[in-house]
Formats: sequence, C-alpha cells, structure tokens
Amino acid sequence: MRQVKVITLLSDFGLQDGYVGMMKGAIAHIDPTLPVIDLTHQILPQNIAQARFVLMTAFPYFPAGTVHVAVVDPGVGGDRRPVAIAVGSSWDAPIGFLVGPDNGLFSGVVAQHSVLQAVELNHSHYWRTSQPSFTFHGRDIFAPVAAHIANGVSLPELGTPIAPDSLTHLPLPPLIQTGNTIQGWIQAIDHFGNLITTIPASALLAENWCVILENTVLPSVATYSERPSGTPISLVGSHGWVEIAITNGNAHETLNLADGDSVTITFPNLQPDD
Amino acid sequence: MRQVKVITLLSDFGLQDGYVGMMKGAIAHIDPTLPVIDLTHQILPQNIAQARFVLMTAFPYFPAGTVHVAVVDPGVGGDRRPVAIAVGSSWDAPIGFLVGPDNGLFSGVVAQHSVLQAVELNHSHYWRTSQPSFTFHGRDIFAPVAAHIANGVSLPELGTPIAPDSLTHLPLPPLIQTGNTIQGWIQAIDHFGNLITTIPASALLAENWCVILENTVLPSVATYSERPSGTPISLVGSHGWVEIAITNGNAHETLNLADGDSVTITFPNLQPDD
Amino acid sequence: MRQVKVITLLSDFGLQDGYVGMMKGAIAHIDPTLPVIDLTHQILPQNIAQARFVLMTAFPYFPAGTVHVAVVDPGVGGDRRPVAIAVGSSWDAPIGFLVGPDNGLFSGVVAQHSVLQAVELNHSHYWRTSQPSFTFHGRDIFAPVAAHIANGVSLPELGTPIAPDSLTHLPLPPLIQTGNTIQGWIQAIDHFGNLITTIPASALLAENWCVILENTVLPSVATYSERPSGTPISLVGSHGWVEIAITNGNAHETLNLADGDSVTITFPNLQPDD
Repeated sequence: MRQVKVITLLSDFGLQDGYVGMMKGAIAHIDPTLPVIDLTHQILPQNIAQARFVLMTAFPYFPAGTVHVAVVDPGVGGDRRPVAIAVGSSWDAPIGFLVGPDNGLFSGVVAQHSVLQAVELNHSHYWRTSQPSFTFHGRDIFAPVAAHIANGVSLPELGTPIAPDSLTHLPLPPLIQTGNTIQGWIQAIDHFGNLITTIPASALLAENWCVILENTVLPSVATYSERPSGTPISLVGSHGWVEIAITNGNAHETLNLADGDSVTITFPNLQPDD
Repeated sequence: MRQVKVITLLSDFGLQDGYVGMMKGAIAHIDPTLPVIDLTHQILPQNIAQARFVLMTAFPYFPAGTVHVAVVDPGVGGDRRPVAIAVGSSWDAPIGFLVGPDNGLFSGVVAQHSVLQAVELNHSHYWRTSQPSFTFHGRDIFAPVAAHIANGVSLPELGTPIAPDSLTHLPLPPLIQTGNTIQGWIQAIDHFGNLITTIPASALLAENWCVILENTVLPSVATYSERPSGTPISLVGSHGWVEIAITNGNAHETLNLADGDSVTITFPNLQPDD
Repeated sequence: MRQVKVITLLSDFGLQDGYVGMMKGAIAHIDPTLPVIDLTHQILPQNIAQARFVLMTAFPYFPAGTVHVAVVDPGVGGDRRPVAIAVGSSWDAPIGFLVGPDNGLFSGVVAQHSVLQAVELNHSHYWRTSQPSFTFHGRDIFAPVAAHIANGVSLPELGTPIAPDSLTHLPLPPLIQTGNTIQGWIQAIDHFGNLITTIPASALLAENWCVILENTVLPSVATYSERPSGTPISLVGSHGWVEIAITNGNAHETLNLADGDSVTITFPNLQPDD
C-alpha cells in the first residue's frame, strides 16, 4: 500500500456555510487524493478549550504521520503566530503534525507528547496565495500547508523554527488531593450529555471509588449498561477521563452541572489520612 | 478500476465530539485509502428504530460489497453480541455487509434481504486492541472489523458463526386491512417534516388512493410540486413508503402527528367489502 | 499524479436522514474512488437564494474541473429542467461544472463566470435508473451524472444543448449609489452571525468607509481582532463581500438585522456630490 497520509480538520465553522468546503477545496487544489477526515466543526464559536479537548482525545486514534488542522482562531489577522508542530519521539516517523494558530489549541496534545519541532509559518510559497485573507487563514494558510506536509514537505521548508516551550499553553487547573478525595472539574460535555472531568484514570488512587454530588453518591461502573436506565453513574470514559453519566439518559440536563463545575471523587477504602 | 469497497457509518454520536473522527482514524490505521461515507450520526440517542429505518432505506443505493457499520448501542459492554452479517443471494458477491451490535439495528435490512452468513465478533486479532473500551466498541471493534472486511477478510476469520434466525428482530407492527382501507403507522419523520409510514408502495390495493386524517382527505400525488404551496398531500416517497407531506411546508409541525401515530389509507374505487 | 476530478455536494437535505448518503452511494456505484466534498446540506428547506450564495462563494476555491452538484429543488418532478453547465473560458479546461435543477441555484456562479456550454439532462443512460423517482433527482439523476462528468463524459452525451441565456437567473437587487453612500442588502447570515451584504469589495468608492446603522457608525477594519470583544465592525469578509460583524460576538443576534434588510455604506472623505 502506498504510504498515504491523512489530514483531519477541526473548527468552529459549523456546517451551514461554505467555509469547511473551501478548506477542502484548497487541499484538493494541491492533491485531491489526500484523505480528509472531519473531527468536528461544531466547536462553540471561539471556544479554544473545547477544541483543545476534542483534539487531544482524538489524536491517539490516527495513524502515524496524520496532519491535524485546527482552526478556532479569534485572533486571526492579529499577532498570534500561525504554526506547524511535529509531535513524537522519532525524527523518522513523527506520530502526528499539528497546524493552526498558536493560541493554546494544541496544548492538550503537546502536554501528552513530545514536540520534535515547531515552526512559525511564514513561507508564503506554500500558501494558497501570498496575500492571504485577513480573516480566513484556515483556507489560505493552514489547509494548504497541511496538504504539503502530508505530501512530504518538511517543517523547516514551511517557516522559521521556534522554541517548543514558546508555544502557547492552556493548562488544566491542577487536581486537589485531600486525604481520600480528589477534586477536579468538568472540562467537556459531550453529545450524550456525559460530563467529562479533568481527572484521568491514572490519577485514581484505588479501584474502589465513587463521585460525591451534594448528598448523592454516584457509584463507579465499567459500562453504561450495568445499571438500570436513569441511574446516575461515574466511569472512566473511552477517552480515558472520569465522566459522570446517566444510563440511557442525559446527565448534563438532569444533574444541573456545567462546564467548569467542581467534581469530587472519594475512595472509601482509603483512610482520610492515607 | 480497482475493486474498491466502500464503508458507511451510522450512529447516534452527533457531530460535536471527536467520536466519529476516532472511528475514521481506526479505519485509516488499517487502510487510509478506503472510502468512508457517513449515512448519519444524528440518530436520536439510543433510538434503534430510527437507525433501523435509515439503514434499511439507504442500503439499496450502495455498490455490492459495501460494508455498513451501525452503532446505536445502549447495551455496549453488556451481553448483546457484536456481529457481522453478509447479506445477499450469492456467496461470490454479497450485496452488502452489516457490522455492529445485535440489537435490532439490522433487522430492517435483514427483513428485505437474505442473510448469507452471520458471525459473533470474538477474534480480537482484528480489533484495534485486544482490550477494547467497555463503552466504545464502534472505535475499538466495529470500525476496524469493517476495514478488514472491505479489504477481503472473510466473516469466519472474524468470529464464530451464529444462526441467522438468532439475530435480534425488531418487527414493524403488521398493517391492518379492513374492507377498502389499510391502517399503518408513522415510522419516521425526516428533515423536511415528511411523515413516513409503515405502508410500502407494494401494499397499495389500487392506483386511486388517499389518506384520511380526521376530517381531512389528503390526495395522493406523484410529486411535491403538483399542488400549491401549503397543501397537505400523500405520496410514495423516494424510499418506497407512503408518506404525508405539505408542499413547500413541514407536515410534522403543521399536522400535529408524531412517530407511532396511526395513518389510514382508503381506496375510493374499491367496495368496502372487496 | 493522476488527474482526479472532485465532486462537491450542496443541498437542503440536512444530515439526520439517509438522503445525502444515498447520493454518495449512487456516485460510489459509478466510481468509489471519486473524492466527494460536502459544501453544506444545511441550506434552509427550499431556500434557493441561500444555496446560490454558498455555491457562488465556495466555487473559486476548488480545482479546475470540479463538478458541483446542488440540490435545492422544490420543483422536483415538475417542469423545471435538470441541467449540467460547463463554466470557464477554455474548452480544454473548464474551471468547473454545475449539475442540478435549473431554478436559479447556479445564477451566482454564472453571473461571475462565462458559460461554455449547458445541456438539459435527458439521456437516461447516464442516470441511476431510466425511471427515476419523482421526488429525488439528486440521487437518481444529478449524482450519477456528476460522477460521469468527473470521469470524462462530455456534456452533449448527457443531454440536449440549451442556450446559456435561457438558464434561470436570480439576480441580486442592484446597489443604489447616492452621493457619497451606497445602499445594499443583507444576502446571507453565517454560522458566526456575521451579516453578509450584497456590496462587493469592488464597489467600494474609497478606502475610508464605514457602515451607518440608525445612529451607530460601524468602523471598517481589516480583521475581527482589531477591536475589543463586543465591538460592532464592518469589513470585507473572506468571501469578498462587505459584512457586519461583532468581535467575538454574534451580530445577527445582537443587532436585530435580518436577511434582506438594507445596509448603507458611507465614504466620509468623498463629497456627497462626488
């Protein structure tokens, strides 16, 4: 099989306009045979944190060398840098590339992987036009650059190297551990109304744990179908983070919890002083 | 032309999260050149009947050998079986494959076509990982298995054969024929608000027919544009079922009818005793 | 690289049903390797003007020879003509093809480019079936015809030539210039709530201009990020038309303006009598 590289797209453009199509047209101009996969275009307008979460959780499921374009870009045309980043541990086979504005979008992926190289995109030879629109770098810079990366152009050809630790970082608030509890926050709410916390599976202190909400204890389970419909539960979601759900229901609508709200996990078998 | 097999995806995942992208990433891991077509990801959460309808009506329009992945899976992680089904009449060229949970999703297609072979998916060699997530078999089992089928892996390599008549069946309620009338039900409502009934064109007893709604008679027409805007009409839709529509309007919003409501067709030229 | 032609799809079908998938299935029947790009399927039902705008603005960003299928088709099954149109200046390399109903959908593209050739589609050999559905020509006629054009079938093979000036034209209302002002109208509202006018950049009389809304003056800027969040602004959008926006906000929701509302631009450095 020919070594075909995949491009993914993520944006807050929605699907009602032609904007996403224009980005795909710009890619097809360079190579119409490149596979292009939409992660989502329904990020809430200008919500960099939501985009950061979706990209971070989807990233591990793509083949090595995939080029991820993310465009949630309230600062377009201002002084935020357009960047391309190679991620992984081996120069021979980066596990992925990131292309878009340096505004924190990529900081979820970057927190979990090593940056091999980063460049500020300023070689307009690889853009759709040397005079890009002031308002749509997705079409005029990022999509064409991604197509060139997928076709083998190296990062230094695309722009000036920058220090990886100069990339904008949007950190998650640190978890608070007190005795036999861990406090985190809701960082994302998915289409099913599942409330995804900032607590990764790796932070769990013991196998026996549950979530405390006011006066309610939400048991931890392995899978949604373990409890009858309508039961509030907690589990490690398929993305690897602790989430709160309701079997066959919508936890977001039912439990009156929102993005950023605090969530506490307790470990009943540990002593508060452990 | 190389014999390329198409994969289709149908789910209740919505488009705002990364879940659909992850499934496509899992396919691209196996073969990034496989064409992947979305049927829809906007099935109402856990609505197996709606998914069954969309898959059944779209199935005939895909080329022979297409692999259809459907994931509306409230029982994921429980004891419902993950299955793959070959449909058609010839072992040499199945007209299609179905991959997903055995919960009735496929029973619309299966009611209209012969099952050549069915297997319970339990050979983890063909999965994304031998330890799949408890909550996302679409990504970890079904998408990879579909990619392997598209690339020529046979069903018995993927799992243990099961009896076709053991597959879960979600039957439509039978039509009720009384004299010169047929009673059916609304089984789907589309984006335009057209109300699609359980009455197939093949059940119509005569060319002259109309739908009776309380005191209103809806004439049957061949096409939406036959009547002035705002007229309630009935017709055989492009999917082959009798539907109720309003020319340039939304029958669902206007006529106060919902999924499951009863619909009666009468044939004026037939005697009630025919 | 093999000269691969791209197909784009635009419709008012929404994404919840199987209709878009069926069109893609009909294309895959002819050639599953053809790249298919969705422009949008969220045109408001039967809104030809909105579809005309999206197609017109996306058209320039696709490679030469792209085949654009557009299906917003309230007159399907009636006497509106199914057509295919070649656009461009050179017979050797049309810059694009348009396929769909002749109801004005294409008049935005046609107003900006030369029509090389137009045909009424009546050679059913190139359709999915010689007896197409009365209500879904997108699946049965337009999608298959587009696949054949992408694979090199010429327009005269597909139907009877028709005069380009017989194509249905949906003109924009002409701009009104009075002294140092230009009056236009809102022709589209995008996902971000940006209000896109009928005034193209080429109609601007001077570099210094602003939009007057009742008692408010909206300064013209080059990019959204030039002003603080919440500021109403005007700018030339990435599509080339003057638009009204709010930095990091939603102008449509905030300013109480709707499709068709009048918008006036003034040029302060010009005399009213210039």
